[in-house]
Amino acid sequence: MTDGEAQLIAEAERRLGAKAIVTDLKEIEPWVTDWRGRVHGAAPAMLAPASTQEVVEIVRLAAEHRVPLVPQGGNTGMAAGATPPSDGSALLLSMRRMNRIRSISADSRLAVAEAGVVLATLHDAAHEIGMRFPLTLGARGSCTIGGLTSTNAGGTQVLKFGTMRSLVAGVEAVLPDGSIHNGLSGLKKDNRGYSLDQLLIGAEGTLGVITAVALRLVPAIAARAVAWAGVESPNKALDLLRFLEARTNNIEGFELVPEDSLQLVLKHIPNTRAPLSGQHRWNVLVEATTADPNHDLPAELERLLGEALEQEIIGDAVLAANEAQAEAFWKLRDTIADAERAECQTLAHDISVSVGDMPRFIVEASAEVERKFPGVIASGFGHLGDGNIHFHVRAGSHAAPDWYESEGEQITRFVDDLVTAAGGSISAEHGIGQLKRSEFARLAPPGRIDALRAIKQALDPLSIMNPGKLVP
Amino acid sequence: MTDGEAQLIAEAERRLGAKAIVTDLKEIEPWVTDWRGRVHGAAPAMLAPASTQEVVEIVRLAAEHRVPLVPQGGNTGMAAGATPPSDGSALLLSMRRMNRIRSISADSRLAVAEAGVVLATLHDAAHEIGMRFPLTLGARGSCTIGGLTSTNAGGTQVLKFGTMRSLVAGVEAVLPDGSIHNGLSGLKKDNRGYSLDQLLIGAEGTLGVITAVALRLVPAIAARAVAWAGVESPNKALDLLRFLEARTNNIEGFELVPEDSLQLVLKHIPNTRAPLSGQHRWNVLVEATTADPNHDLPAELERLLGEALEQEIIGDAVLAANEAQAEAFWKLRDTIADAERAECQTLAHDISVSVGDMPRFIVEASAEVERKFPGVIASGFGHLGDGNIHFHVRAGSHAAPDWYESEGEQITRFVDDLVTAAGGSISAEHGIGQLKRSEFARLAPPGRIDALRAIKQALDPLSIMNPGKLVP
Repeated sequence: MTDGEAQLIAEAERRLGAKAIVTDLKEIEPWVTDWRGRVHGAAPAMLAPASTQEVVEIVRLAAEHRVPLVPQGGNTGMAAGATPPSDGSALLLSMRRMNRIRSISADSRLAVAEAGVVLATLHDAAHEIGMRFPLTLGARGSCTIGGLTSTNAGGTQVLKFGTMRSLVAGVEAVLPDGSIHNGLSGLKKDNRGYSLDQLLIGAEGTLGVITAVALRLVPAIAARAVAWAGVESPNKALDLLRFLEARTNNIEGFELVPEDSLQLVLKHIPNTRAPLSGQHRWNVLVEATTADPNHDLPAELERLLGEALEQEIIGDAVLAANEAQAEAFWKLRDTIADAERAECQTLAHDISVSVGDMPRFIVEASAEVERKFPGVIASGFGHLGDGNIHFHVRAGSHAAPDWYESEGEQITRFVDDLVTAAGGSISAEHGIGQLKRSEFARLAPPGRIDALRAIKQALDPLSIMNPGKLVP
Repeated sequence: MTDGEAQLIAEAERRLGAKAIVTDLKEIEPWVTDWRGRVHGAAPAMLAPASTQEVVEIVRLAAEHRVPLVPQGGNTGMAAGATPPSDGSALLLSMRRMNRIRSISADSRLAVAEAGVVLATLHDAAHEIGMRFPLTLGARGSCTIGGLTSTNAGGTQVLKFGTMRSLVAGVEAVLPDGSIHNGLSGLKKDNRGYSLDQLLIGAEGTLGVITAVALRLVPAIAARAVAWAGVESPNKALDLLRFLEARTNNIEGFELVPEDSLQLVLKHIPNTRAPLSGQHRWNVLVEATTADPNHDLPAELERLLGEALEQEIIGDAVLAANEAQAEAFWKLRDTIADAERAECQTLAHDISVSVGDMPRFIVEASAEVERKFPGVIASGFGHLGDGNIHFHVRAGSHAAPDWYESEGEQITRFVDDLVTAAGGSISAEHGIGQLKRSEFARLAPPGRIDALRAIKQALDPLSIMNPGKLVP
C-alpha cells in the first residue's frame, strides 16, 4: 500500500464511515480479476460509496493524495477495463452500493438509475410499469448501468434501438476535479456547448465516474415471433434483412450463424436440435417484436418469409411454434462460443465493418486467415444487421496445446489489419480497456490518439481516473 | 489586415489558386453580418476550399500564422456563431464550395454529404431515391449540413426523429492540428475510445472544421394528416400528446399555440383564418405521418381526436381536409414570430425544460414575468413535445420605443434565471455563439465551464478555431 493510499483510506473511513471502505482482501479478491479470468490485478482496498456526494469526497481525496481510482460495476467487461493494475497502485471504486432507481415513469418514458443498478433489475422495474428498457446482453444479471454506459454496451437488440449511446438521455458524473456534472434533467433539446454526456459514454471511467444515468424506455413487448432461415451466403442473409426492413418496422434481432458453428452446437451442447431438416451453408435467426397487442406478428413474419422463399432470397425457413421453441432457437445462437471452445482452442475478435461490406468481409477475411495460417478455421457469426460479428478463429484439431498463447497474437494482428483495411473497428462492442490498447495504438490514425490523449490530459491532469485504460 | 492574415492569404492563393480566396469586400459583405442583422463583423478575406485536403492546407496555414478561422455554412445561425469579430482579426472559412453529396443509398439508409450541401438539396436527393432526411427548419433553402451539425440543429420533426445528434452517423472533420478525423465509415458499432463525432456535433466550429457528414435516412412519407385542436391549458395539451403517443407511433409534429398568438397572426398575416369556430385558450397543431401507403392516417387521427374529445382532453378539433389546408394550419404556427413583431417589440427566448415540467413552466413563468415587468405580455409557443418553446415577451402597446434596448437584457436575465431554476436550458436549439456567451457564463455550474475550457484548450491550443464563440 502506498502512503497516499493509506492516507486516503484513513481519511475516507473518517468521513464516510467503515461501510464505504473494504480492506479485507478476501472480500476484494473476486473483483481484482477480470471476469474471463485473464487479467489479474491487485488493490489494497475497495471504496464503496453510497451516494454521489460520497463519490465527490472520494474523488477529491484521490486528487489530494494522487491515488488512481478504478471504477467498477458488475466486473463483466470483456477488455479488462475495470481491472486494477497488478502493482496495487490504484484503489477499486465499486459503484454497486449506488443501486437505487431514482425515478421511473411511463409518461415521460424515462428512468433514472444509479450506476450500480443491475441491468436485470432495471428490466424488471420497467416491466412493472408496462415499459421496457430495450438493451440486453448475456451478463444482464450482473452488469450495471454505470458499466454499460461507460462501455457504450451493445447486445442483441441494437438493430432496432441502438447501443447505450442511443438510449442514454443524460448522465450524472463526478469529474476528476470533484465537480458534479448533472445531465439528468431529461432535456430533449439542449445546446449549451460540448456534450459531456456523450464524452462520458464509452469513456471507460477515464474521464470521470458515472454515478447515475437517465435512460429512455419504450413500450413493453406485446408479442414476439422468432424464425430460423437457411441461406446460401452472407450476401443472401443481408438481402433478407433489407427485404424485411423494407416491409416492416418490427425486426429486432437478426443473427447470422454459419452451418459449421451450428453443427458444433448440435455436437457439444445438450438438448439442441437443428430447426431445419436440410443443411444450408448459412443460417439466420430472425426476431420480430411488437408493442401492439392487436398485431398478428407471427402471421406477418410467416408471410414475409414466404415471399423471401419465393424470391429465392432464402432456401428454407421455420417459425418457432411457441415460446419454448423460440428460446431453443436463441440457445443455438447463444451457445456458439461455448460449443467452439468445447471443440478446440478458439480466438475471438469483436469487430465491425459497415453493414453493406460485412457479407464480403466475412467470406474474404475468413479465406485470407485460413490461407495465411494453414489448419485454422475462421468464421463470423452474430449481429449482421449491425455490421458487427464475432470473428472467431479456431485452432483445428491438430493444433499444439499452446496454440492460443504462441500464435494468438499474430493471428489477431492479421485479423485487425484486415478489419482496419476494410475501414472497420477492432472494437465494435467491448471497448479498449487494457486488452486492446496496444492494437488500438498500432492501428489508429495518429491524429486520433493525439486527440484522445489531449482530452484525457485536459480533464484528468492528475491521471487519477482509471489510468492505463483506453487511451494508448 | 494583420501580417499573419496577409501571409496566410498569399500562401493559400499560391497553393489553392485564386478560386479559393475571396478578398473583394463587396463579395464578403453579406457574410460578415449575422442573418438577423444584429451582429456586424469584418474579415479581410474569405477562404473557400473545395475539398477536405484544401481545408487541411488552410488549417495548417492558420496554425502556422496564428490566424483564427471562422467556419461558416449558410450564415443562418441565431446566435452569431458564424459571424467574425469586428476587428478583422479572423478570416471567414466558407464551406459552401464543398457541396457534393458523396453518396446516398436507400439500401444502407445513409447519405454522405459535404459540409456545404444545402438542406433542401439533401431533401431533394433523398426524395429521388424514395427516402427522406427527417429534419427540417425555416432556413432549409440556405442552411448547410455542416452548420446544422455544428449547431446540433432541431426544427419541427424532432419529436419523432431527434435533433441532428440522432441523425448523424459519422463526421469527417479537420482538427486544429491539421489531421483529418474520418468518422464516415458508417459503423453502427464502434467502441474505440471517446467519440470525436459526438464532441464535434454542437461544437460550433470551435474544435475543428466539419467537412462532411454521414446522415441517416428514413423511408419517404407516404401520407400526412394535420389537425388543429383547442385545449384549455398547456397541461391538457401535454395530456393530448401522451394520449396520442400511447396509441400511435405516427405523431411527428406537436406545436403549442396560445390563443393570443393566434389572434395576432389573424390580425397581421394576410390570408389567414381560424381553423376552429369557437375560441380556446390554447391551441395545438398535430401532424401525423406514415411511410406505409396502405395506412389510412386521416382516419386514425380523426378517431383518436374523437376519443380525446370524449375524454375531455380537448375542447374541439378539426382535421385539414387537404394539403392546402394543412399548409394553412402550419402557416398559422410559422408566422407567429412575424405577427408578434408586427404588433409590437418582442423579445425571444429559445428555452427548454423537461417535457413533463413544461406546462407548469409556461403558465408560472409567464405570470412571474408579467408581474415583475408590468405592461409586458409573456407567452410560450412551439415544440411542447420536445420540452422546447419559444418564450416570447412582448413590450405591449404602451412601451417606450427603446424598450428592447433598455429593458431587454434585464428581462432576458430574469427569464434565464427562471429557466435555470427549473433545471432547463437557456439554449435549446440555437446554441451559444456570441449572443448567449455571457448568460451561459453567468448561469452554468463552474465545473462545466472549466471542463469546456479544458477541452477547447486541449484540442485547439493555438485558439485558431472560431475563438470567442461558445466557450465563455
